Amino acid sequence: MSDKLEEFRKFRERMNDRILEAGNLEIKRFFALDSRTYEAGALDVKTKELLGLVASMVLRCDDCVTYHMVRCKEEGVTEEEFFETFSVGLVVGGSIVIPHLRRAVDTLDQLSREAEG
Amino acid sequence: MSDKLEEFRKFRERMNDRILEAGNLEIKRFFALDSRTYEAGALDVKTKELLGLVASMVLRCDDCVTYHMVRCKEEGVTEEEFFETFSVGLVVGGSIVIPHLRRAVDTLDQLSREAEG
Amino acid sequence: MSDKLEEFRKFRERMNDRILEAGNLEIKRFFALDSRTYEAGALDVKTKELLGLVASMVLRCDDCVTYHMVRCKEEGVTEEEFFETFSVGLVVGGSIVIPHLRRAVDTLDQLSREAEG
Amino acid sequence: MSDKLEEFRKFRERMNDRILEAGNLEIKRFFALDSRTYEAGALDVKTKELLGLVASMVLRCDDCVTYHMVRCKEEGVTEEEFFETFSVGLVVGGSIVIPHLRRAVDTLDQLSREAEG
Amino acid sequence: MSDKLEEFRKFRERMNDRILEAGNLEIKRFFALDSRTYEAGALDVKTKELLGLVASMVLRCDDCVTYHMVRCKEEGVTEEEFFETFSVGLVVGGSIVIPHLRRAVDTLDQLSREAEG
Amino acid sequence: MSDKLEEFRKFRERMNDRILEAGNLEIKRFFALDSRTYEAGALDVKTKELLGLVASMVLRCDDCVTYHMVRCKEEGVTEEEFFETFSVGLVVGGSIVIPHLRRAVDTLDQLSREAEG
Repeated sequence: MSDKLEEFRKFRERMNDRILEAGNLEIKRFFALDSRTYEAGALDVKTKELLGLVASMVLRCDDCVTYHMVRCKEEGVTEEEFFETFSVGLVVGGSIVIPHLRRAVDTLDQLSREAEG
Repeated sequence: MSDKLEEFRKFRERMNDRILEAGNLEIKRFFALDSRTYEAGALDVKTKELLGLVASMVLRCDDCVTYHMVRCKEEGVTEEEFFETFSVGLVVGGSIVIPHLRRAVDTLDQLSREAEG
Repeated sequence: MSDKLEEFRKFRERMNDRILEAGNLEIKRFFALDSRTYEAGALDVKTKELLGLVASMVLRCDDCVTYHMVRCKEEGVTEEEFFETFSVGLVVGGSIVIPHLRRAVDTLDQLSREAEG
Repeated sequence: MSDKLEEFRKFRERMNDRILEAGNLEIKRFFALDSRTYEAGALDVKTKELLGLVASMVLRCDDCVTYHMVRCKEEGVTEEEFFETFSVGLVVGGSIVIPHLRRAVDTLDQLSREAEG
Repeated sequence: MSDKLEEFRKFRERMNDRILEAGNLEIKRFFALDSRTYEAGALDVKTKELLGLVASMVLRCDDCVTYHMVRCKEEGVTEEEFFETFSVGLVVGGSIVIPHLRRAVDTLDQLSREAEG
Repeated sequence: MSDKLEEFRKFRERMNDRILEAGNLEIKRFFALDSRTYEAGALDVKTKELLGLVASMVLRCDDCVTYHMVRCKEEGVTEEEFFETFSVGLVVGGSIVIPHLRRAVDTLDQLSREAEG
């Protein structure tokens, strides 16, 4: 993993552990529910992750975008499919999405280098 | 069409005509771009419409939700697929999405009655 | 209940039933979690409902505001406490909160008339 | 005034009076500050109202859009200037702005009919 | 104070001074109003700071969350109360709140170390 | 340019090139449309850039704020005009705008030093 992705992953893991250990039941259930929501059902995992990605993009949450991009890449989403998903996010959410799009494409390039690496 | 859907469609059509006739070139181009974005590419039309639907839901735009639901229905999205898309929108966007979810399910029932009707 | 509040309550109940019957497990769990979150813990129910109210107000969700106001009223929140909660929502969220504040105060007056009965 | 604009104006006035009479000092000060912000300074009133309009549009607050359109019309904003302001709002805020744009153009037509009245 | 908190505090203080010196009367009044809003009234300071915290969290403003957490800590808010406030923010605002929740819990741990320190 | 502004400019340019080379037609058209929207029309460029700035501020997009501030500075916007635009953004968007206001004023000071430099 690149440094930026690695840092994201480590902080995410460390804080998720810390949060779940704190023992607030509602937060624990939310985290469990969050995972279940992207499991295969009538829609397959890839489609659900694309839904999570575009929702994260229009709400302009960089960490959420990174997370769903990692998962999408694992599910075999191609560069062309990523860009079409981004185009929906851009048109729905407007030019304020652009800075997040730039960072998303930077993440995409890091994920591609790792896959090749 | 039900009365509510019919009223939405009429106002939408009348105002879109009015807006495009006003002659602002940027707005005209945005409307054209908005349509193109959901055309088939690496992702099929159904997937793109689901992306538009979930993005509209987390941004809590009832009219956008209605529009993409009509299009999704035309693309053969099933009730189970609608609800899975809604579940992603709900988990990503939180309980403030619930009032829009209620109205979306009401719209779904109207669309189903029309399809049967 | 006033007509407006009654209509809100009826639509809310009817659609919640419809949604829960649809059988999407994630949505059902989200609804259950949503209820649990406002139960007494380290913070009492009144404080949690005030938190839900101000969060709904800054996110400008009228139905959520109405719901939490009904619950706050049941928990004995006074008019002065309502207005102080509104003032936090207004200062945090800005003048775009004002239309929602107007509707919230209208709801407050309806709730007061009902209480006086 | 058209029925829709008249209804908006009446509810706005009635609730503003009600809110200011409630005696919450912070809310009163916010309302006073809100008015002062659009007074002439280094920028003229028309420019400030256009700023208020585009901010209201990207935040998708219909009542705020209506209020600033009434004020812009009083300051002599032309239809072409309105549409250029809308185009900035649309491009910055994306397609979720479109339903608000439709209602804004409907309001514009009502304001024009009154002016011709 | 930890480095991160110290950096936040310094930049905040330096820029607040710079902004207030610039002499824009509306901004000065807004800053004064912002402070007043959290003073004791019908609701006590602790409750008002919790309201400010949850509002900041659902609007996903990290700096605002940090500020209100510092104030809440000063008002004696316990870890359990913090987590219950976070749980309301998470359920209302959805999974996009999670990255902000992670950073908030990191801030909480820094505040606890300082208090012990 | 200051280091921070220089870094922003470089990343922006590099990623814009990368995005446009990727060949997604909708994204390319959106970028072209985004540029056109701020060209002179019934409203002059300075006014349009101020509209873009206030819209970016209330939507709390730091990179968008920086971009429009650079353009506004080129169009001769004075410090007083910047602050009045900020005051509209602050009153419309509320105290959650303040962290972005702090960073915007920091950017303003960097732009002024460069202009003098």
